[in-house]
Amino acid sequence: MIGLEIFNLVQEMYPICRSITGNGVRDTLDIIKKHIPGLKIFEIATGTNVFDWAIPKEWNVKDAYVIDPDGKKIIDFQKSNIHLVGYSIPINSVVSLKELQDHLHSIPEQPDAIPYVTSYYEERWGFCISEKQRKSLRAGDYYVYIDSSLTEGSLTYGEIIIPGERKQEILLSTYICHPSLANDNLSGPAVTTYLAKYLMDLKYRKYTYRIIFIPETIGAIAYLSKNLEVMRKNTIAGFNITCIGDDRTYSFLPSRHGNTLADRTALHVMEKMNLKYIKYSYLERGSDERQYCSPGIDLPIVSIMRSKYGEYPEYHTSLDNLNLVTASGLMGGYEVLKTCLDCIKNNEKLKTTVLGEPQLGKRGLYPTLSIKNKNKYEKNIIDLLAYCDGDGDLIEIAEKINTPLWELYPLVLELKRHSLLKEVE
Amino acid sequence: MIGLEIFNLVQEMYPICRSITGNGVRDTLDIIKKHIPGLKIFEIATGTNVFDWAIPKEWNVKDAYVIDPDGKKIIDFQKSNIHLVGYSIPINSVVSLKELQDHLHSIPEQPDAIPYVTSYYEERWGFCISEKQRKSLRAGDYYVYIDSSLTEGSLTYGEIIIPGERKQEILLSTYICHPSLANDNLSGPAVTTYLAKYLMDLKYRKYTYRIIFIPETIGAIAYLSKNLEVMRKNTIAGFNITCIGDDRTYSFLPSRHGNTLADRTALHVMEKMNLKYIKYSYLERGSDERQYCSPGIDLPIVSIMRSKYGEYPEYHTSLDNLNLVTASGLMGGYEVLKTCLDCIKNNEKLKTTVLGEPQLGKRGLYPTLSIKNKNKYEKNIIDLLAYCDGDGDLIEIAEKINTPLWELYPLVLELKRHSLLKEVE
Amino acid sequence: MIGLEIFNLVQEMYPICRSITGNGVRDTLDIIKKHIPGLKIFEIATGTNVFDWAIPKEWNVKDAYVIDPDGKKIIDFQKSNIHLVGYSIPINSVVSLKELQDHLHSIPEQPDAIPYVTSYYEERWGFCISEKQRKSLRAGDYYVYIDSSLTEGSLTYGEIIIPGERKQEILLSTYICHPSLANDNLSGPAVTTYLAKYLMDLKYRKYTYRIIFIPETIGAIAYLSKNLEVMRKNTIAGFNITCIGDDRTYSFLPSRHGNTLADRTALHVMEKMNLKYIKYSYLERGSDERQYCSPGIDLPIVSIMRSKYGEYPEYHTSLDNLNLVTASGLMGGYEVLKTCLDCIKNNEKLKTTVLGEPQLGKRGLYPTLSIKNKNKYEKNIIDLLAYCDGDGDLIEIAEKINTPLWELYPLVLELKRHSLLKEVE
Repeated sequence: MIGLEIFNLVQEMYPICRSITGNGVRDTLDIIKKHIPGLKIFEIATGTNVFDWAIPKEWNVKDAYVIDPDGKKIIDFQKSNIHLVGYSIPINSVVSLKELQDHLHSIPEQPDAIPYVTSYYEERWGFCISEKQRKSLRAGDYYVYIDSSLTEGSLTYGEIIIPGERKQEILLSTYICHPSLANDNLSGPAVTTYLAKYLMDLKYRKYTYRIIFIPETIGAIAYLSKNLEVMRKNTIAGFNITCIGDDRTYSFLPSRHGNTLADRTALHVMEKMNLKYIKYSYLERGSDERQYCSPGIDLPIVSIMRSKYGEYPEYHTSLDNLNLVTASGLMGGYEVLKTCLDCIKNNEKLKTTVLGEPQLGKRGLYPTLSIKNKNKYEKNIIDLLAYCDGDGDLIEIAEKINTPLWELYPLVLELKRHSLLKEVE
Repeated sequence: MIGLEIFNLVQEMYPICRSITGNGVRDTLDIIKKHIPGLKIFEIATGTNVFDWAIPKEWNVKDAYVIDPDGKKIIDFQKSNIHLVGYSIPINSVVSLKELQDHLHSIPEQPDAIPYVTSYYEERWGFCISEKQRKSLRAGDYYVYIDSSLTEGSLTYGEIIIPGERKQEILLSTYICHPSLANDNLSGPAVTTYLAKYLMDLKYRKYTYRIIFIPETIGAIAYLSKNLEVMRKNTIAGFNITCIGDDRTYSFLPSRHGNTLADRTALHVMEKMNLKYIKYSYLERGSDERQYCSPGIDLPIVSIMRSKYGEYPEYHTSLDNLNLVTASGLMGGYEVLKTCLDCIKNNEKLKTTVLGEPQLGKRGLYPTLSIKNKNKYEKNIIDLLAYCDGDGDLIEIAEKINTPLWELYPLVLELKRHSLLKEVE
Repeated sequence: MIGLEIFNLVQEMYPICRSITGNGVRDTLDIIKKHIPGLKIFEIATGTNVFDWAIPKEWNVKDAYVIDPDGKKIIDFQKSNIHLVGYSIPINSVVSLKELQDHLHSIPEQPDAIPYVTSYYEERWGFCISEKQRKSLRAGDYYVYIDSSLTEGSLTYGEIIIPGERKQEILLSTYICHPSLANDNLSGPAVTTYLAKYLMDLKYRKYTYRIIFIPETIGAIAYLSKNLEVMRKNTIAGFNITCIGDDRTYSFLPSRHGNTLADRTALHVMEKMNLKYIKYSYLERGSDERQYCSPGIDLPIVSIMRSKYGEYPEYHTSLDNLNLVTASGLMGGYEVLKTCLDCIKNNEKLKTTVLGEPQLGKRGLYPTLSIKNKNKYEKNIIDLLAYCDGDGDLIEIAEKINTPLWELYPLVLELKRHSLLKEVE
């Protein structure tokens, strides 16, 4: 069961404390590299300019906790790494409850949830706790300890380019910068890893696949700043893979103008697989399509998700844990994305080789006895031929015929075998 | 009454046993030629390659019947020619009921109807009977006799080209390959004959009319293979004429992309005549638009029908007979098609000759006394002038103004007489 | 209160007897010139050819009345100038009631209203009275007196061109040819006068404003015939200003194709100001857009109105008086048009200066602490940047983001100050 294997990978990566830099990212990539031996690890040094940004200092944490006036360790990074505000600076101090409160984060509307908070670009320290716990704190002196480091280091990411017959590329991008959070975001790298395995195992690949495991935002910007020219030239479609592990309704987030091959493929697949899904607007974006689809970058990238970031109650809290993602949820997401990749591979512009309808009967492709009703197979063959004029691609034809591409493609192969169709490049 | 004349022509052609080749086609064309003396008859020899197809052997029948164990002639080609499967090979034999059953065709859902079945491209023999009769057959030896011939011969079709001032052509295509079947298909050649008469009688013809009477599919393919170049160059619109004789709701079948002059004209006419009609998709096509609109042929052809082939219960059965088509049904179809031909003739790109609104009052085209409400005539004149910018044609303007082209055209003539409008070619 | 000032201007112009030529137009322009000292007055001589038309004779009236058989002055031009049919020829005669009836105009459906009637291009005389009064007339001799003159003279109009940094122009056109009628039409010149004052008072003007006060139809034709070349070259948008003074629902009349900057601006403003308005079709036009948008002229002109001409019961009757237009009604119309002018000024094609999203946090434009929900300000900034690709203009972006342009424009200025956005010309 691939779903279970993907779930196990989520589970294996779960305990690691990740951020946009640091050893958590490296440890995560080491786990992924066990599945993708060809994965290359890159480091970009702190201070390197990447478009409008600069690579920040590298952040690592050894320990962090708060001890209450009774000497009890009431907040402990070892128990849950989201207790610590991401990129917290070191501290070793005794503070009053009043002062501590300024550094605490909780969610009044979700009293049992610990929020996930970061402060990458402003030096701060802080802890995240449940609203319930926060209310139980009483006046007194608290011992606050954060053994973290913010040093000149680097930003780490992984990349594998799986070559195909053609230079044209499909991009799969996922991020690996959240600590112990499951749907957003470990579902993303786990599903992407298994998609990479699927692609590596193929005997024949038409297109080249560029698969990257990066920190969100700064990682996408850094990666683009290094690879933009080739990506802009070669990328025909791509998917930002995140929030793909729970069991709820699917979600679709389009590219900026919503009309790329990736958009058309995703919508065709989700419709024709009869998936229940919510079609979001680009205005509701919030992940790396913010970079991929930005003006001047203009890559054809969309997101297919289960419950979309920002839209489910557990999002960015301790409730987005291993109870939320499931083997079947991950499997569903994997299947949709795999189907999209297959559709893109099989999508071609096709042209008939004869004028008028070919005589299918003499090739055994059509009944020789006229009867009132044609079956679906014969109907699909003649409809396919009717639209193969070298203009629209197979996805467009499949939409016109209202038939999944994966039902038409075997007919394309059959008609090519009879030299009745040919690909137009 | 033209409707009655058309009905009489259907009736005259009805008894003949037609197929895609043979003397039935020739006899039918002889009848049509009485109305269209200029009709030219063409023969294409068996074996001639036409695109992906070859002209089949010519089929003729002298007699065919089945005698039951009691010596009774229970199936008789002389009584109804659709009893015989089209293109049946000769046979003279005694067979058991069991063997006979393999050669019988009936429709369980329509126990009283004899189906119409053909096998043009695979040599077979067979008989069509009602399900009711089939159930009454009892075991025993049946004498089966078919005196048919399948020989080197030719495929026959008729063509008349009625010249106009311009080389641009309108195509009217109808088929003449069904035996005694009324709506599909004798309504087609009958209405087409009367449209040809209407066109021949015109004192002035702007466009040239190409009118053809062909066997369906193989005839269209054969005709196109001989005439494609000139047709592709000159055809501005065309109609495939079939199923145009019953009294029920009209039907419209668009061209492949649904945006040609023929599509726009047909929809404008049917809407503005306030006809009740069903707008089918090109996916529901089933006649010679399969050839005319196929990739690489790309002619601007649509079908205006009454009850569409495949969609009415009597279709391709003995129930599609002289009780189904009516003088008023045929007349209605004739009128719609004639109106389309008139609209295409009067459709022009027009441009005003003055800047700003012309002063209509001084030409007697507009009231000189200002009043609160304009009448429809004056409103149409100023609306017409407002849109005659040399871009859209008169059908587009008529759609914008929501007025039938035939109400606007007299105004066009009036404004041309006053030199306020001119045609843009 | 600008609304009250505009109302007072309507009131000041109200008593004057205007027509398409004559001293009424000159007196009206004199009043307007007190507000717009730079207004230039032009005269075009009777007989001058303007496109398809010729400037008519000039019409002036000293007095006009009808005395009944009892010697009572029952119709008196001095009491209401709309009693007299516009362009009536002089008469001094005694006529029977029967003959008089042929020269009387009334509205049976509105028994208390005096209709407004003109006969510019056919020499006639006539009086307009209420249906109620007409029914009270008894047989006998009536003394009819019209002291009018129809002479070689000229057509008068006013124009001011308020220069801006760019040659590109906005056109404001209004007409001044109706006698004592308030919504149609004195609301138009009054609101236009105050828009001119607003524009003159601006310290900086990006665009040039062409503002004209003309007689309807013949004035627009005459003006266009003199200025078409420069207007066609420079006009980027314009508004025909009329019927802008009552308190009822707004109205919008599009340009011929409905897709110009003026159309987009007007619809954006009316939608985003949450105005209740009726969107008419160009088929329902009836003012000078008939000339501005006609084929070959093709200017980007729309009308924003309150109750549209022809659509409210008081239209073109004595009921369209100073009780119908209000200070608040005029103020509302003024505000919408002013907002449109501001939007056009601030509408730009914009492009981001960096690839990928800029780092807003380091510029204080974005929170440095990640939290679950963004506020509207931050959301608008990133959405704005996401669409500034140099293709669509700010109105299109504002439509996509579903936010008024006037809320986005301060962000544009802020982002320009940070050199993150630049205008693309």
